[in-house]
Amino acid sequence: MSHRARLLISCPDRPGIVAAVSQFLFEHGANLAHSDQHTTDPQGGVFFLRMEFDLPGVDGALPELEREFGMLAGRFDMEWRLALARPRKRLAVFVSREEHCLLELLWQSRSGDVPADVALVVSNHETLRPVAEAWGIPYHHVPITSAGKRQAEARQQALVEHAADVIVLARYMQILSPEFVGQWPSRIINIHHSFLPAFAGANPYVQAHQRGVKLIGATAHYVTADLDAGPIIEQGVERVDHRSSVEDLRRIGRYIERMVLARAVAWHVDDRILVHGNKTVVFA
Amino acid sequence: MSHRARLLISCPDRPGIVAAVSQFLFEHGANLAHSDQHTTDPQGGVFFLRMEFDLPGVDGALPELEREFGMLAGRFDMEWRLALARPRKRLAVFVSREEHCLLELLWQSRSGDVPADVALVVSNHETLRPVAEAWGIPYHHVPITSAGKRQAEARQQALVEHAADVIVLARYMQILSPEFVGQWPSRIINIHHSFLPAFAGANPYVQAHQRGVKLIGATAHYVTADLDAGPIIEQGVERVDHRSSVEDLRRIGRYIERMVLARAVAWHVDDRILVHGNKTVVFA
Amino acid sequence: MSHRARLLISCPDRPGIVAAVSQFLFEHGANLAHSDQHTTDPQGGVFFLRMEFDLPGVDGALPELEREFGMLAGRFDMEWRLALARPRKRLAVFVSREEHCLLELLWQSRSGDVPADVALVVSNHETLRPVAEAWGIPYHHVPITSAGKRQAEARQQALVEHAADVIVLARYMQILSPEFVGQWPSRIINIHHSFLPAFAGANPYVQAHQRGVKLIGATAHYVTADLDAGPIIEQGVERVDHRSSVEDLRRIGRYIERMVLARAVAWHVDDRILVHGNKTVVFA
Amino acid sequence: MSHRARLLISCPDRPGIVAAVSQFLFEHGANLAHSDQHTTDPQGGVFFLRMEFDLPGVDGALPELEREFGMLAGRFDMEWRLALARPRKRLAVFVSREEHCLLELLWQSRSGDVPADVALVVSNHETLRPVAEAWGIPYHHVPITSAGKRQAEARQQALVEHAADVIVLARYMQILSPEFVGQWPSRIINIHHSFLPAFAGANPYVQAHQRGVKLIGATAHYVTADLDAGPIIEQGVERVDHRSSVEDLRRIGRYIERMVLARAVAWHVDDRILVHGNKTVVFA
Repeated sequence: MSHRARLLISCPDRPGIVAAVSQFLFEHGANLAHSDQHTTDPQGGVFFLRMEFDLPGVDGALPELEREFGMLAGRFDMEWRLALARPRKRLAVFVSREEHCLLELLWQSRSGDVPADVALVVSNHETLRPVAEAWGIPYHHVPITSAGKRQAEARQQALVEHAADVIVLARYMQILSPEFVGQWPSRIINIHHSFLPAFAGANPYVQAHQRGVKLIGATAHYVTADLDAGPIIEQGVERVDHRSSVEDLRRIGRYIERMVLARAVAWHVDDRILVHGNKTVVFA
Repeated sequence: MSHRARLLISCPDRPGIVAAVSQFLFEHGANLAHSDQHTTDPQGGVFFLRMEFDLPGVDGALPELEREFGMLAGRFDMEWRLALARPRKRLAVFVSREEHCLLELLWQSRSGDVPADVALVVSNHETLRPVAEAWGIPYHHVPITSAGKRQAEARQQALVEHAADVIVLARYMQILSPEFVGQWPSRIINIHHSFLPAFAGANPYVQAHQRGVKLIGATAHYVTADLDAGPIIEQGVERVDHRSSVEDLRRIGRYIERMVLARAVAWHVDDRILVHGNKTVVFA
Repeated sequence: MSHRARLLISCPDRPGIVAAVSQFLFEHGANLAHSDQHTTDPQGGVFFLRMEFDLPGVDGALPELEREFGMLAGRFDMEWRLALARPRKRLAVFVSREEHCLLELLWQSRSGDVPADVALVVSNHETLRPVAEAWGIPYHHVPITSAGKRQAEARQQALVEHAADVIVLARYMQILSPEFVGQWPSRIINIHHSFLPAFAGANPYVQAHQRGVKLIGATAHYVTADLDAGPIIEQGVERVDHRSSVEDLRRIGRYIERMVLARAVAWHVDDRILVHGNKTVVFA
Repeated sequence: MSHRARLLISCPDRPGIVAAVSQFLFEHGANLAHSDQHTTDPQGGVFFLRMEFDLPGVDGALPELEREFGMLAGRFDMEWRLALARPRKRLAVFVSREEHCLLELLWQSRSGDVPADVALVVSNHETLRPVAEAWGIPYHHVPITSAGKRQAEARQQALVEHAADVIVLARYMQILSPEFVGQWPSRIINIHHSFLPAFAGANPYVQAHQRGVKLIGATAHYVTADLDAGPIIEQGVERVDHRSSVEDLRRIGRYIERMVLARAVAWHVDDRILVHGNKTVVFA
């Protein structure tokens, strides 16, 4: 995988894009491993492309490749990026008191199912320190008070700025400020314990129980300034019934949350997600 | 099945209910085929019981059985009913222009998967008359105008009052008045083309497409005066992705709608649903 | 859609294929609507490509386009075909006594969810004649006797040879001879009422009940000379439990069968399936 | 939960069983919390009953309760047992080199989702010692050689005999002898990495890949002398497609395996499973 890279593109759709891009990669000696594309409309829509390719020495050649591709990109008015498959991306996992999502990420990181490293854990509580430390992961306790939120976020930013490529809110029960979020566009992933947009806001399992739904869900989404309304990456549901107590919903929910979050993080670190307005294109 | 009946009970939970009811049925010569129960809380909750039993000659013996059970029921402060498995219940299917839910009910009625008969079809359009008549089902066109809604509902009521046991809104795009709904408590089933409470109201597939959800659903519920908020009977979902257009969502939605509606109707006509406040207990 | 066509390719994987093909289409004025590709191995594997494109006048230009593409195809050692999206493909549906799969195909054909036409129904029984004729579809009764199987298949072939593009075995309970099957390579789709390879052969629901499985399924596959072992196109499952009788399994199975078969047929008529050895590549 | 117990019964079906049992519990002051029943046939079938009840002091009163119930049980020819909800059951987890199922059981035990304690881990390798010891669980390395299998099993039996209530084979890659299995009837749970009976035996993911299936699964079952053929407790599946390599199947499979195994163990320790011949009745 050390020779592998990914090219992600979005641009106005028009004929010839795939021909030009694949010709470019071919001429530079790249061998296409996967290619996915999507257009919102062949006439005047937006075109999305992800090409995963093998090119010996791509890590050293990246700056040159980027410079040359920039010229082609200009012709098609592309937003684009080239990303190396290696090294693995670094996760900063933010947690509060619940361990299930953190544990899932730790295990899937070790197994390789989420091809990324948990670089550090940040929490507003001490609760999960033993979990992180048992895995040899640095754990930072950053308490949040309403008065000191600004300073707390400054400290969080200092911790993660150079240490992580993506922030994962793994049942982190604090709301990040728009200023903090603005520093990590499409790079903070949250797991919301509901099938959004149903039951946005607090206590979704209590809400779900009161409404008597027959399925409950969870939603992984990018965090934007608009709480619970960022671009949805992945959703999952499980059946419940009249016998399910609120505690049962929480138990079943834990299972959905960790699966949905792990899938979303895996797609992100594999550069499979393109954000377009308030929606995602996921080349799963 | 001609000797089969069902006893449905809800009452304050306290010790001895199952003992008393099962003793009653045993002494009257009934043989228990299925029994399901649920309590919202063993201490001071509400208790629900459904017993399906075989008793030769139960149809003739029903009035006597009801009279005797009434005495026991009084001791436990029960709401209850006895229902014969035969004859099959009669459905009045209300439709507008879309055929998929009607067709599913017609097929499943014929196959026995929904053990009920479609007695008549009522529509505010002529569109589906050929479908109904190809199956030999009476079709009644009752146009709805804002001015004439009262009279239209009077005509609908006259059509169904003695002809049907339950009304199924199979993509019927008109809102029934609280007065009409009040005549059919827990006996009107609607299919809403969304995973409620997400995307209540009009055009849920358009809403879902705009929000970029990764799963879409449908909800079968009893109709109450409060639009889209009646007790949920069943829900289903299917995966969608960025490639799904609004028309794709409608197509996938049609499939979910007919499956969810057919399951809900099958449970209703099998007397498997108890309504409790705004929720259902479904002994599926 | 009248200007739409699809190009399907399989060939040894090597660099430059996508560049060459997309350049070819671009130079011929085609606008790419969808593109999917797969390689079994970037090093020495087999490469599969499906490109769906819009090209005004493609129906008239097809022979010329095929001639020119043939030269490019030769350079890459491709197996390939160009297929017009219109007119819709014609289905010959073979049935025995059960109607559910036939009904599903008739309805999905009418709704457009399966974008194909049911051209004729062929059966070894008279049972479903009323169903087909209610939809205005020609129905041909071709009885099968062990002595007369050869003649029966000759008659079937005469019926479908020029009238249909694909044969769908919609719960057709007769085994076709290798000779007949050989005339329709990758163009006969069967629905097997089991999650293959579990419970191959007769009476899978009885087998499943005896084994006490907790999920039952159905499998749509291309028919080859090797019974129940052809390339799998699609599979589906549903939960069952200890309460499920063999008849319940059949009922739940009917539902899975018609959904799985309809999906498989829709993919086939959309030219989304490439067969490779005993497996399928489905660009769903 | 300390006053909670469960009564499990199987016997020939005949009228009056529920009446007699519920009357018995009522007279002894028990308050029914849940009740589930099943009959294979109301006429001459086998009847299964599970009643979960609250009775203050039930732990002390158990011997007396069992003695008295034995008389009633005799009248109905019952197989039965009374089980206390507390203390939690003790698991002996047998592993080889793969950690995912062990980790899942450790987490779910801690969260209470599997209400049982992992008492010890037994392995034919040293690989997972660090995992177990990080959780403070005793780890016993019992190497298996073909010559020394008999002694190894004697040592395993000595380890678990008084320390565990149930043995969980969590990807334990050795075959237990019929003699060992015979000591733990319906108390050894295995996870088979396939949707049985498809792909029984070795390397099911390789088999599945070769066959080109579109769904893969896992099966939790009780271990009997007949390899991979014991009573099925639970099964799960996930979608795969042509892009899935054998390694992808293993990855997806790990996820299914741990979920299916955890569900099966949770049901077992909640006394929700009755074995009948080669099948299970699971009152989930």
